[in-house]
Amino acid sequence: MTKVLIIGAGKSTSALVRYLDTQAQENNLKITIADKDLQTAKKSASYASTTPIELDIFNKDERQKQIKAADMVVSMLPARFHIEVAKDCVNFDKNMATASYVSDEMAALDEEVKAKGLTFMNEIGVDPGVDHMSAMKVIDEIRDKGGKLISFESFTGGLVAPESDDNLWNYKFTWNPRNVVVAGQGGPAKFIQEGKYKYIPYQRLFRRTEFLEVPGYGRFEGLANRNSLAYREVYGLEDIPTLYRGTLRRVGFSKAWNVFVQLGITDDTYTLEDSENMSYREFINSFLPYSPTDSVELKLRHSLKIDQDDLIWEKLLDLDIFNAQKKIGIKNATPAKALQSILEEKWMLKPEDKDMIVMYHKFGYEHKGEKKQIDSTMVSIGEDQTFTAMSRTVGLPLGVAILKMIQKKITIKGVLRPIHPEIYKPILEELESFNIKFTETETEFLGYNPHNLK
Amino acid sequence: MTKVLIIGAGKSTSALVRYLDTQAQENNLKITIADKDLQTAKKSASYASTTPIELDIFNKDERQKQIKAADMVVSMLPARFHIEVAKDCVNFDKNMATASYVSDEMAALDEEVKAKGLTFMNEIGVDPGVDHMSAMKVIDEIRDKGGKLISFESFTGGLVAPESDDNLWNYKFTWNPRNVVVAGQGGPAKFIQEGKYKYIPYQRLFRRTEFLEVPGYGRFEGLANRNSLAYREVYGLEDIPTLYRGTLRRVGFSKAWNVFVQLGITDDTYTLEDSENMSYREFINSFLPYSPTDSVELKLRHSLKIDQDDLIWEKLLDLDIFNAQKKIGIKNATPAKALQSILEEKWMLKPEDKDMIVMYHKFGYEHKGEKKQIDSTMVSIGEDQTFTAMSRTVGLPLGVAILKMIQKKITIKGVLRPIHPEIYKPILEELESFNIKFTETETEFLGYNPHNLK
Repeated sequence: MTKVLIIGAGKSTSALVRYLDTQAQENNLKITIADKDLQTAKKSASYASTTPIELDIFNKDERQKQIKAADMVVSMLPARFHIEVAKDCVNFDKNMATASYVSDEMAALDEEVKAKGLTFMNEIGVDPGVDHMSAMKVIDEIRDKGGKLISFESFTGGLVAPESDDNLWNYKFTWNPRNVVVAGQGGPAKFIQEGKYKYIPYQRLFRRTEFLEVPGYGRFEGLANRNSLAYREVYGLEDIPTLYRGTLRRVGFSKAWNVFVQLGITDDTYTLEDSENMSYREFINSFLPYSPTDSVELKLRHSLKIDQDDLIWEKLLDLDIFNAQKKIGIKNATPAKALQSILEEKWMLKPEDKDMIVMYHKFGYEHKGEKKQIDSTMVSIGEDQTFTAMSRTVGLPLGVAILKMIQKKITIKGVLRPIHPEIYKPILEELESFNIKFTETETEFLGYNPHNLK
Repeated sequence: MTKVLIIGAGKSTSALVRYLDTQAQENNLKITIADKDLQTAKKSASYASTTPIELDIFNKDERQKQIKAADMVVSMLPARFHIEVAKDCVNFDKNMATASYVSDEMAALDEEVKAKGLTFMNEIGVDPGVDHMSAMKVIDEIRDKGGKLISFESFTGGLVAPESDDNLWNYKFTWNPRNVVVAGQGGPAKFIQEGKYKYIPYQRLFRRTEFLEVPGYGRFEGLANRNSLAYREVYGLEDIPTLYRGTLRRVGFSKAWNVFVQLGITDDTYTLEDSENMSYREFINSFLPYSPTDSVELKLRHSLKIDQDDLIWEKLLDLDIFNAQKKIGIKNATPAKALQSILEEKWMLKPEDKDMIVMYHKFGYEHKGEKKQIDSTMVSIGEDQTFTAMSRTVGLPLGVAILKMIQKKITIKGVLRPIHPEIYKPILEELESFNIKFTETETEFLGYNPHNLK
């Protein structure tokens, strides 16, 4: 029998647990789902193979007791809490997995983990996770046939599914709303294009998008992520002249979002005076010049040069931001918190709504003197509000990876990312059976100058 | 004999020392000028009453020896170093003075300083300093006659004198260039207008200026300082509906500076790749979209919507920012450092150039049912590059305050700002003899709605 301990029963645990349960009988799995709230654990543990328990991870004795009793540990906790679990796993010789980025502290365990013959699989969700695997597959194929990568652009978006897309922003919150509100802050976007380093400050980020077409799903826009350059090392692309990673939104989102950026209402670093009693209208007005006579509407239009017939305006009205009756109602709110609460009113998924994950990779390469391009796209639509696209694309790769580790089909040791063929090949293959699959098309290299203009 | 110890012989020490020397004989002063670099101390100590010494303030024994031997200590060190000097002054029962803002650590000494019967005079330069004194004078006058303050706006600028104003920006560096480049960062401008709290984010700061006319000196523009609200407590204006503090520039400066803000090249928080070998042109280009064909010039114009005939463009050309030959030449430069080095080429004062300090206060008040306004302005022009306006307006109030303390004409105890009539009255009076004087004019209250438009 193999005992799997899942710590943290969050949003993306549902698909993970369902998958593991389908494999439980054949593989003799016993799955314990631990959460600080027993009711939350119980919700995820509705299967024959699953047992819910209450676990406070800050209770060291209790945490270590559970880890000791397990054969395989999965941390679904917020990323900053993985390290304590990881240290216990080293001490008690347990393999582990997370869907989070390898932190410096986690990376520092590599030698010890290797020495003990253990596997700590990280970044095995969707982004990071599916992005790594699907990118490395194409990158390795190009290298294997003797090609040389000349550009790599990669975009991921968590969006609302087309059938549930019913607001002017073509957007709903399908994940942590706070992360959406503060996205792009804390440093410029850095990337490299044709050998030139490029920097985009936050105040320009939402005005520097590019369009992408996903067959069957129409147009999206991509905006740069914070640091694309870090991926040169991860993917072994140290000399690549173009490397760009970004986030996908439906076309027009970023231009309208830029209104909030310019107003300054995405700032999460200071609190507003008397935010509790502020109306939506007063909130917006506090970021506009004082006038005894002019309307908030006209001041905003003038301030940000929004034309009479600009669609942005309809988007703003749709959010009811000029309402003088509705109150923010949050004490000591930062502008970002106030904005979030306004957005949540309109952008929460309705019970019957579905979400969607879209991924787009663009690879340019040279092979035998020819320049080619591979476009690889994946769209995954959620089943419902429990088995969302987000939960499926995070939980399934994680579940498959865990099972392969238990089955000793993944044998590589250390603190890992799924960038090795031994790992990503079988996982990507199995993900296809869950309709998480990439469509690749090869064309001439279009690059940045398709018509060779001088 | 009274021994005055001046620690730190920076830019604004010149006028302080010259003033004290003129008072030395009559008041029996012996002035020691201490600097970590003896040559720097010697430059300031060219008077009969002055002695230069070398002093490393991090050498505790040496520092305490000098402070113990003095009767009055003046710290002209960077603000963060005052506290060590202040603690020694408490221990050895010495009065002290600085031109810097009262830090929390300094404020915490108040009780001890009072208990020992000492005076620690702070914020007694120009801004803070002359601004406090000239504002409190009018505020107290209004209160004394039974009036009620309804608005206070205050602006200060360190600029180039009209006779030396020979570039398109109407600006030269007359103080620490770095502070100019990063001005406005680190939080929004906060103020209150007609009872409404207002917030301006950095990305809008240079587009939210207002014009001010200074008789005899023409038009200036004012842009909001970071936190005006702190002055409510300092000035005892807790209930004032309008309080706004700002910085003065010549008209047009801010709109052009906003190009740098929008590009993202005022950021001092990360370093550029290979900044040393970057040309000015490459520097600008790294903040613009990649193109194999389009010029940096057109990309910038398009990106920031700068019209063909916009004067901003001439200002940018004047700085030579598109030069492909000139190199940044600084290793691991932040964007702000790179920009600073470009600006220093053009904005350094020439040997014969003079600087200028401009101050503008606007007070609104109600008295016997009538609303009135007082405009109070001061312009001070530097003598030369040693006795600059900055040095004079910082060093003279400091010098006068020190002398009054020595003469026991200022007897108030504790950690102080010059906001008490006992302090500011004699100092302002003496400053007039150095032509640092305010012109006050009273009119009807204009406020934000002079014609009572509805």
